[in-house]
Amino acid sequence: MVGGVTCEFRKGTDRDIVHIALESALKLLKDTGFPRNFIDAVIVSSCSPDQYLSSIIAEIVGVKPKISHRIDNLCNSGTNAIISAFSYIASGLCDSALIIGAEKSNTLGKVFSTDFSRGQYNHPIFWGSIFKKIHMKKYGSTEEQICQIAVNNYIKARSNKNAINRSNSVNLQQVLNSRVLIEPLKLLECCSICEGSSSILLIADEKFSFFKSKITSNKRNCELIPVLIKGIGQQTNCASFSNAITDIFAEGSARMAAQQAYKMARISPKDVDIAEIHDAFSILEILGYEDLGFANKGEGGTFVNQNKISINSRGGIIGCGHPIGVTGIAQAVEIFEQLVGKQGHNSKLNRSPNVGIVHNLAAAGTSGTVLIMES
Amino acid sequence: MVGGVTCEFRKGTDRDIVHIALESALKLLKDTGFPRNFIDAVIVSSCSPDQYLSSIIAEIVGVKPKISHRIDNLCNSGTNAIISAFSYIASGLCDSALIIGAEKSNTLGKVFSTDFSRGQYNHPIFWGSIFKKIHMKKYGSTEEQICQIAVNNYIKARSNKNAINRSNSVNLQQVLNSRVLIEPLKLLECCSICEGSSSILLIADEKFSFFKSKITSNKRNCELIPVLIKGIGQQTNCASFSNAITDIFAEGSARMAAQQAYKMARISPKDVDIAEIHDAFSILEILGYEDLGFANKGEGGTFVNQNKISINSRGGIIGCGHPIGVTGIAQAVEIFEQLVGKQGHNSKLNRSPNVGIVHNLAAAGTSGTVLIMES
Repeated sequence: MVGGVTCEFRKGTDRDIVHIALESALKLLKDTGFPRNFIDAVIVSSCSPDQYLSSIIAEIVGVKPKISHRIDNLCNSGTNAIISAFSYIASGLCDSALIIGAEKSNTLGKVFSTDFSRGQYNHPIFWGSIFKKIHMKKYGSTEEQICQIAVNNYIKARSNKNAINRSNSVNLQQVLNSRVLIEPLKLLECCSICEGSSSILLIADEKFSFFKSKITSNKRNCELIPVLIKGIGQQTNCASFSNAITDIFAEGSARMAAQQAYKMARISPKDVDIAEIHDAFSILEILGYEDLGFANKGEGGTFVNQNKISINSRGGIIGCGHPIGVTGIAQAVEIFEQLVGKQGHNSKLNRSPNVGIVHNLAAAGTSGTVLIMES
Repeated sequence: MVGGVTCEFRKGTDRDIVHIALESALKLLKDTGFPRNFIDAVIVSSCSPDQYLSSIIAEIVGVKPKISHRIDNLCNSGTNAIISAFSYIASGLCDSALIIGAEKSNTLGKVFSTDFSRGQYNHPIFWGSIFKKIHMKKYGSTEEQICQIAVNNYIKARSNKNAINRSNSVNLQQVLNSRVLIEPLKLLECCSICEGSSSILLIADEKFSFFKSKITSNKRNCELIPVLIKGIGQQTNCASFSNAITDIFAEGSARMAAQQAYKMARISPKDVDIAEIHDAFSILEILGYEDLGFANKGEGGTFVNQNKISINSRGGIIGCGHPIGVTGIAQAVEIFEQLVGKQGHNSKLNRSPNVGIVHNLAAAGTSGTVLIMES
């Protein structure tokens, strides 16, 4: 990965999906100065109903790619697109890929109509509420521990100019007192679906010097900064809701994805400096601590407010908002920017981070993706 | 590739997209006897609005994949999904992939709303009519040559139990006399969007013996038959309509894709025994002859009714119907079945085919994919 740009997330505008996508894609091409004629693949991540998006965007930005298509898989569409681009490059079919996430707030990804097994529980709020209830009952996590995650992420979002909740000042009492959506889940513990865009440029490691030499010398402020994708884990164990509940409290998708990624990167959880954890509901961040191996099973509640690892420095999904097909890409951009020292977001680390991890879920954790990135 | 199944194409039913997909996916798993716990990726190709399709289908068929997402890119979604699966395997992230194409006749892929550059020409019929007009005027192709392609494909579809036009008996006079849709394009030269499903199983070459040993001995009629994907070409030059016209009569996407594929497979057009050519309109098959190097530029009209290469043995898109996200996969299944001697479709060859080629376009040829397969 040699560049990444996330643009402002918004609650919703009348911009069309192409214009939303162009915001981050054009800025990324400008910032990196990457020559358009060397881009081999354009992959769009979006749950939008609009068709032929990657080719339309490619033409507008002036790229004629070999590979061009859309990928979607609900909330981990973005990391799936990154892994697909990685595989095009690792297989030798491509040397470079532009990955663009774009979503409107009225995306098709809000509707979960096809999986009848979710029955009346077809809205994600039910999933969050059940997970929270089980974790409190089974492991004794407290309401305060879980709600503190939301507070932490709102605080971090205040220094992120792209977050939809950047002007919210929320304390623990406010989260605890916010409207109960589904007992015990409260309004301020939940993310909002929003509009946004985020783009990444991925290249083959061994082509770094070649591509760098192609950045023309008159583009003074442009740069390619290498961050390696060292570990990839992706697992889908089920799609139906009854299995989802069993899965997320057992050897679930995200846990298996983490194991795959750590094995590929040849590192362990203690090597991680910075993490983006999928906090669509605050309880999911606690499950993330456990699945990523930062805390033992059931002990995620006690890991809140630790200082060992910088977590969700951009403000997480609760603080930033959740443009469905964009989130995984925006998470990777945040890790990239932290690793290369570009962002001033709220990191508690007293050292420069070298290893970052992305944890991205879909559909109540029935799919989980983990990426390990190193500077 | 070790197996492929296409199920009956239908004009449209009230079946939902999951049930349509399951038809071919379950039959493929049954026919091959491939153990579900060894399937690393499930990739769905569809322009359906339904979300999380790959994971829902994976769960129903009993697969827990590492990689699971949907891919779409209008009419060449199917070959894009195959190439993506190929790259997951070639990159080492996966050893096997189940690729499932499924489409309903009211798919979102019928609407081309996002690309404003097509203006009033936002329906594919305009594109076919303009291509036909230019080819006749510029190269002197005759109405009879072009319409004969439709006749040939209707005849071949008669021996294909999955084709929507399997009971149509159409002669040249009928095509010539059929209703003019947009001058000079006639009704019987155009494909119909339809419902259908087609699935493929792809594995790493070097794992063939391993996977074969995993087919339990009590599954007597099951078999894995190896066909190699030797060449891959994919190119997107533009998305806008004005460029599409220039492109398809110059060094267009499909021609560039063919060159990439021939180079990778280290063969030339004269080595090809059997071809699936994207005949959404009859004129596109003539352009296909030229782009694949079977005929010189402008001479595609004189290549109709040749006997050197078996073309569109299943009846092409005109004869079979066009389930948008399925077509590229169904084309590859046809080549697979011809190469392994499984199909009795109307092939004019007096020899067993060894080399097959798939030519799959999207959006008036603004994207083109070419796959070369060898037995």
